[in-house]
Amino acid sequence: EEVTKLLQLKQQLGDDGSKKFILKTPKGTRDFNPQKMAIREQVFNLIIASFKRHGAETIDTPVFELKETLTGKYGEDSKLIYDLADQGGELLSLRYDLTVPFARYLAMNKIKNIKRYHIAKVYRRDNPAMTRGRYREFYQCDFDIAGQYDLMIPDAECIKIVAEILDSLELGEFVVKVNHRKILDGLFACCGVPEEKFKTICSAVDKLDKTFWADVKAEMVDEKGLPPEVADMIGVYVQMSGGPELIEALLKDEKLGANKRAAEGLEEMKLLLRYCDLYGILDKVSFDMSLARGLDYYTGVIYEAVLKGHTNEPTSGGEPTGVGSVAGGGRYDNLVGMFDSKGRNVPCVGVSIGVERLFSILEARAQAAKGKTRTTETEVFVASAQKNMVEERMKICKALWDANIKTEQPYKKNQKLLNQLQYCEETGIPLVIVIGETEIQKNVVKIRTVATREEREVSRDDMVEELRTEIRRLGVSGGAAGS
Amino acid sequence: EEVTKLLQLKQQLGDDGSKKFILKTPKGTRDFNPQKMAIREQVFNLIIASFKRHGAETIDTPVFELKETLTGKYGEDSKLIYDLADQGGELLSLRYDLTVPFARYLAMNKIKNIKRYHIAKVYRRDNPAMTRGRYREFYQCDFDIAGQYDLMIPDAECIKIVAEILDSLELGEFVVKVNHRKILDGLFACCGVPEEKFKTICSAVDKLDKTFWADVKAEMVDEKGLPPEVADMIGVYVQMSGGPELIEALLKDEKLGANKRAAEGLEEMKLLLRYCDLYGILDKVSFDMSLARGLDYYTGVIYEAVLKGHTNEPTSGGEPTGVGSVAGGGRYDNLVGMFDSKGRNVPCVGVSIGVERLFSILEARAQAAKGKTRTTETEVFVASAQKNMVEERMKICKALWDANIKTEQPYKKNQKLLNQLQYCEETGIPLVIVIGETEIQKNVVKIRTVATREEREVSRDDMVEELRTEIRRLGVSGGAAGS
Repeated sequence: EEVTKLLQLKQQLGDDGSKKFILKTPKGTRDFNPQKMAIREQVFNLIIASFKRHGAETIDTPVFELKETLTGKYGEDSKLIYDLADQGGELLSLRYDLTVPFARYLAMNKIKNIKRYHIAKVYRRDNPAMTRGRYREFYQCDFDIAGQYDLMIPDAECIKIVAEILDSLELGEFVVKVNHRKILDGLFACCGVPEEKFKTICSAVDKLDKTFWADVKAEMVDEKGLPPEVADMIGVYVQMSGGPELIEALLKDEKLGANKRAAEGLEEMKLLLRYCDLYGILDKVSFDMSLARGLDYYTGVIYEAVLKGHTNEPTSGGEPTGVGSVAGGGRYDNLVGMFDSKGRNVPCVGVSIGVERLFSILEARAQAAKGKTRTTETEVFVASAQKNMVEERMKICKALWDANIKTEQPYKKNQKLLNQLQYCEETGIPLVIVIGETEIQKNVVKIRTVATREEREVSRDDMVEELRTEIRRLGVSGGAAGS
Repeated sequence: EEVTKLLQLKQQLGDDGSKKFILKTPKGTRDFNPQKMAIREQVFNLIIASFKRHGAETIDTPVFELKETLTGKYGEDSKLIYDLADQGGELLSLRYDLTVPFARYLAMNKIKNIKRYHIAKVYRRDNPAMTRGRYREFYQCDFDIAGQYDLMIPDAECIKIVAEILDSLELGEFVVKVNHRKILDGLFACCGVPEEKFKTICSAVDKLDKTFWADVKAEMVDEKGLPPEVADMIGVYVQMSGGPELIEALLKDEKLGANKRAAEGLEEMKLLLRYCDLYGILDKVSFDMSLARGLDYYTGVIYEAVLKGHTNEPTSGGEPTGVGSVAGGGRYDNLVGMFDSKGRNVPCVGVSIGVERLFSILEARAQAAKGKTRTTETEVFVASAQKNMVEERMKICKALWDANIKTEQPYKKNQKLLNQLQYCEETGIPLVIVIGETEIQKNVVKIRTVATREEREVSRDDMVEELRTEIRRLGVSGGAAGS
C-alpha cells in the first residue's frame, strides 16, 4: 500500500543521505512566506484602493497565451519569452506583460472603452538580479484607460493615480518625469537624424538617467554612426527638463518650435501640465526631454516615476537596490489594431506600478524597523489552564467563530499555559480567553489582555460582547469581509 | 518609424481581410471579464474571511516548479502536467496543484508547523468541460494545518471551515461526507482483497457516487478480477452511511470491528464526529463508507462536501453543471517526507475549496436574477450641464479623490448631460455632482441622487461632507482600504 510506495520513492530519491534532487524554486523565482505576503497584501490594498477610487474595473486573462499572440510585440526582447513544451495541440507562451493580453482582450471582445486594472504575474527569461528586486516571475500592476476620448484627460488621470499611490505608500519624495513621443520624433527630425535611426537613437537617449552624456554621445557617434554635430545638437535638448515655462520656451525655439510634430507634442504636453496643475500634482511632475522609454508601442505621452534618494540606497545585503523607477507608462494608440482583422484601433493610455520594487523597499523597511509584521489577524486565543479541557475550548471557539471573532486554540489537547501565552506574544494575538476548572464551575471565563497581562472574569453569557468591546478598544485589525 | 512598422505587421497578419491568426485564449482557458471578476472577488472575500477567522497565514509559490519536484506525485495523472519548453537551463513544469508545492515549501524551509491558505491557479492538460466549470487553468483554494498535533483536532477544524464557507455563500443545503483510509484498508483486508489490489478497488469504490453498485461490482469482478463473493461483501459495507450510531455498530461488527486497522480508524472517526458535534456541524456531516477519493497521498481522514440538489441542475446553456462536490480534502502525513533528505515527515491535513464550481453556480444565479452586478465601486460622478467645464470638473474630482471618495468624470470635454446621467444609471453610480454656469457663479454644486432623481444644492465648501453623509445613508459599498 501507499506507505510502501512512499518508502520506495524515498529510496529512489536517495535515502542514503545523498539527496538526488535539489530542493529549490526555479531560477529567478521565489516563495512568498507569510511575512512577505503580509507586506504584499498591504501594498496591493493601497494600490487597488486608488484604482477603485478612480472607478476602475478589473479583468483577468490566462497565464499563457497562444504563442502567435505574443509574436512581433516585443522586438528583441522576444527571446525572453517562456514557451511551453509542445505536448500536442496549440503552441503556447507565458505572458510577458499584461498590456498585450489586454489589447488581445479588447480586440477579441470588440470593447471600445474600458477603464481596468489588472494585477498578475508575468514571466521573462531575463538574467535575474534578485537582490535588486528583479525576478523571472514578477508581478505587474497595470491600470489602463481605453477609449476615444479628449486629449490628455485620461493621460493626466494616470499620472494623478501614480502620485496618489506613491503618496499613500509613504515612500518619501518622488518625481514623475514626462515626455512625448512626438516631441522626441520632432527633435530627431529637426536635428537631422535619418528616420530609420529614430528608434536606436531613442534607446541611446533612454540611458541618460543611468550614465553621462559623454557616454551616450559616444554610443550615438561611434556605434550608431551619427555625425558628432547631430549628436551634440540632440545633447543640447535632451539635457533640458522643467515645467510649463520650458514648454513655452521650446514652442518659441526656432528649430523645435518650427517642427510640426514637435510643436504638436509640445502643445499636448502643455495641456497635460495644465491638467496636472488642476489635479494638484504639478510640483511632482517634471517635463524631461531625456525620457524615452524602451517599448516600441508608445505613441504619445510617456512617463516614469522615480523615487528621490532611493536610486542607490544599500539593502540589508549590502547591494544597491537600484529602485529608482517605480512606475511607468504612456499612450499606445495602435496596439489593439494589431489584433483586429480590419486594423481598427482603440486608443489606450496606461500605467504600470513597479510593485516588486515597492515590495523590496517595504521589506527592507520592515526589517530595519525590527517591529514584527503580523501574519495573521487572530483576535482571541482560547487557552486552558488545566488538562483535559479540549472539549470546553472547542465550545468556546465555536461561539467565537460563529460571532465572527478571529479565534485560535492549541491543536494539542494539553499544553502548558505558559507556552500558550508565549505563542500569543510571539504572534501578536492581543486577547486570551483562559479557562480552568474553577471557571467552568462558575460558568465564567477569564479575559486576558496580552500586552498588559491584565485578567478579568466575565460570565460566559457576556463573553462575546465583552470581547467585541475589547477588540474595538484595542483597535485590532479585525473586520475583514465577514459572513 | 513605428506606425510604419505596425502597418507592416498588420499586413503580415493579413490586412486583406483573411486574418492569419485566430483571436482566442488557449484551449481550456478563459478571460475573466469585470462581471466575472466581481463575483470572483466576492467568493474569495468570503473564503478568505473564514480562513482568517481561524488564524491562517498565507503563502505563495511560483507558478512553475522544477520538473522533478512534481515527478512521482500524481501517478497516472502525471501525463496531464504542462511542461515548459527546454530553452536552456532548468527543466520546469507548471504546478498541478497547491499541495505538492506546499510540501516542497515545508521541507525546503524546514517548517514543522504552519496553518496556511493559498489561493492560486493550477494547470492540467485535461479534457476541458467548460460548461461544467472544468478548465485547464483553474483556481485552487487550499487551507492546510501542518504539525504534530493531537488526533482529530485540526481535522475537525477543516470540516468546520468547509461548513462555514458553504453557509456564508448561501448555497443551500449540503453534506460533508467523511471516511478514513484506515477504515477502507481494514475493510478491504477483512473482506479478503489482496493488498496489491487495495488501490484499484479503492478507485472502483470511489465511483459509487456517480453510478450504481451493480456497475461498480462488475468493474471489481470483471475488470479487476475480484471473486464475486468478495465484491458482495465489500458492497454490504460501502453502501452504509450514517452518524455516530453506525460507528458504534461497526465497532461491534464481528468482521470489521475485529480488524485492528479498521477499529483504529473507527475510533478516530468517532472522535472526529464528537468534535464536529461540539463545533455544531454534526447534522451536516455524514460518515460515508463509499467515499474513497482518488489521490494516493491521503493517509487518514478524508472528506468531501456535496451540495444537495445541485448534482444535475441544468445551466443556462442547457448542459448539466455537475457541481455536486464543492470541497474536499483529508490527511496526508507522508508527503512532506518525500522532499526531506532524511525522510522526516510533517503531518498535514487540509481542504481544497472547489471555487471554480462555486463561481459557476454564483454566475448562473447572477444571470438568473438579472440584477446587474456592479463592476466598479464608484460613488460619485462629476457631470457638467454645459460646455467647456472640464477644468471645473477636474477641480471637483481632485477634491473628492483627496477626500477618498470614489469619483469619475467623463473623459470627453463636452458630453450631453443626458448621456452622463445614463452612464450612471447603467453602471450603478448612486450620486452625481452636476455643475453649470449658474452653480459655478454661486459657488455651489447640485447633488443628484440617481435612484430618485432628486437634486439639491449645496455650497462647494460643504460638498465633501454632504457627499459623505449621503454615501453613508445610501449604504454604498465604499470604504475599501484607503489611503
